[in-house]
Amino acid sequence: MALVGLEELRAAQRRIAGVAVRTPLMPCPWAADGTRRLWLKPENLQPTGAFKVRGAYNRLAVLSAEERARGMVAQSSGNHAQAVAYAARLLGIKAVIVMPDTSPAVKVANTRSFGAEVMLVSPDDRDTVTSELAERHGYVWVPPYDDPYIIAGQGTVGLEIGEDAPDELDTVLVPVSGGGLISGVAAAIKLTTPGVRVVGVEPELAADAQASLRTGERVIWPVADTYRTIADGLRTPTVGALPFEHLQAYVDDIVTVGEAEIRAAVAVLARRGRLVAEPSGAVTTAAYLSRAGELGGRVFAAVVSGGNLEPALLSELLGG
Amino acid sequence: MALVGLEELRAAQRRIAGVAVRTPLMPCPWAADGTRRLWLKPENLQPTGAFKVRGAYNRLAVLSAEERARGMVAQSSGNHAQAVAYAARLLGIKAVIVMPDTSPAVKVANTRSFGAEVMLVSPDDRDTVTSELAERHGYVWVPPYDDPYIIAGQGTVGLEIGEDAPDELDTVLVPVSGGGLISGVAAAIKLTTPGVRVVGVEPELAADAQASLRTGERVIWPVADTYRTIADGLRTPTVGALPFEHLQAYVDDIVTVGEAEIRAAVAVLARRGRLVAEPSGAVTTAAYLSRAGELGGRVFAAVVSGGNLEPALLSELLGG
Repeated sequence: MALVGLEELRAAQRRIAGVAVRTPLMPCPWAADGTRRLWLKPENLQPTGAFKVRGAYNRLAVLSAEERARGMVAQSSGNHAQAVAYAARLLGIKAVIVMPDTSPAVKVANTRSFGAEVMLVSPDDRDTVTSELAERHGYVWVPPYDDPYIIAGQGTVGLEIGEDAPDELDTVLVPVSGGGLISGVAAAIKLTTPGVRVVGVEPELAADAQASLRTGERVIWPVADTYRTIADGLRTPTVGALPFEHLQAYVDDIVTVGEAEIRAAVAVLARRGRLVAEPSGAVTTAAYLSRAGELGGRVFAAVVSGGNLEPALLSELLGG
Repeated sequence: MALVGLEELRAAQRRIAGVAVRTPLMPCPWAADGTRRLWLKPENLQPTGAFKVRGAYNRLAVLSAEERARGMVAQSSGNHAQAVAYAARLLGIKAVIVMPDTSPAVKVANTRSFGAEVMLVSPDDRDTVTSELAERHGYVWVPPYDDPYIIAGQGTVGLEIGEDAPDELDTVLVPVSGGGLISGVAAAIKLTTPGVRVVGVEPELAADAQASLRTGERVIWPVADTYRTIADGLRTPTVGALPFEHLQAYVDDIVTVGEAEIRAAVAVLARRGRLVAEPSGAVTTAAYLSRAGELGGRVFAAVVSGGNLEPALLSELLGG
């Protein structure tokens, strides 16, 4: 498939205006160490607490009237579920979300609060049920990352970084899971400011994307392995097919961070950055703070991808 | 003195561009109850963690070359100190900050981290020492709120709300202490969208501004009383003279919130809004959540004025 281009990115930006929050780039004087500086892109401020609303709305906004009338289905235990439900409600589209029956009650409740119909199924049956629903009712299946409209929507994060960044920006740090966010951001950065590096960050315990980029083949990690990380948004066992093409074309490198570094970064973001970030959203700050040598670079923009975590975990990470 | 006008507000907006963060208005679906909706203006995202950098930079940016060369002095135990130090460093101006020797070590350290010289003095000697320094060295004294440039700088919060707000916005909620923020915001709102109400919020335990607005006379509360509130940024015993004129001209009402409501709002902002707000910054959300009947209105913008609080207090308020 063709890579997402500047035209698709700019069309996405026009579509999501007034729906997704136009997040600022925040300078972080507390993170400057004399040679390096950090700016944060706080996507946890989105109405559903994560960047996902950008891609979801961009995907649904291009459905035909006939498709909208049929409704949509998606499969997710996390931020994609809430984003799709939120976007569907804004557009008046019926949304059915298939969630594993192991999902935390608060995530199910949040998804329902946006007006979606939630179907709880055994984790093993997720894809089958979603596929059956799509076939039987003609629902449009909205995937979480392996889709050009989703990638273009998430890529608006990169366009905004380009608009707001200081001239000296040299490195953009982006979390990697299925790869939708980094694909869009990397396309936007490389097509507008090709000299700026785009570096992915993932947990050491779910380093499938790093292995994929470095070997040139999509590597799949066992779910039993990826589920060890606290960063529950980054447990996808492999990047999507279309995201992988973007990674190969546009991403300079992928680095990893340890669990203790992720936990510490959540606390630092709350105490110094005044942001509540979920562990998946804190990996880029963790990389900036603890992987200076590996990263190189002097002026960083780090995407804080989301802020949905259990209150008890937040208290724990803050040392409460 | 003359009230701050639209020309001064727009000049301030041009001066602070690229220095203060252009914060977004965040829609809060979690706070909608079918009849009322809330948007947050997260000023805790500013580089020093509070709106104060807007006024401080606007004040210092208009100093003459000769004044800049002499340096400046300010007196503060809180967010004004850090903001002035930060702005002075950006402009290459020597900054001396007089702080009470009872200030938390972290605030002193933060102020020093921005390159300011900190003088710790007995709380009773603050004004005398500051005045002597200004006289002896010719330092420009930068006040926290009783100054038209400070008010115009803080008022850029109001201009931005006007630019981003949904058409249906009917009420803007602003914390009140010395009155600089609400003066500027109210001027900006009333001079651009006069139909929108501006309502101040202060703690029941420091309700001097409400008493002042309602009686038409500046009321002074004893410091022993105002210091009972957890909202340490709102303990000023009375509003400034110039702010009081703005309150009388432009502010529709001032409501109060209780200590338990303020504490609960800090927790809600972290858990649902993904923002770390200090108690003073949470009073507007507290008013939205707990004073619906008194407030009236349907579509609210609430200024979250800052996010500087001790990590231990944050943990406590999150129930850690």
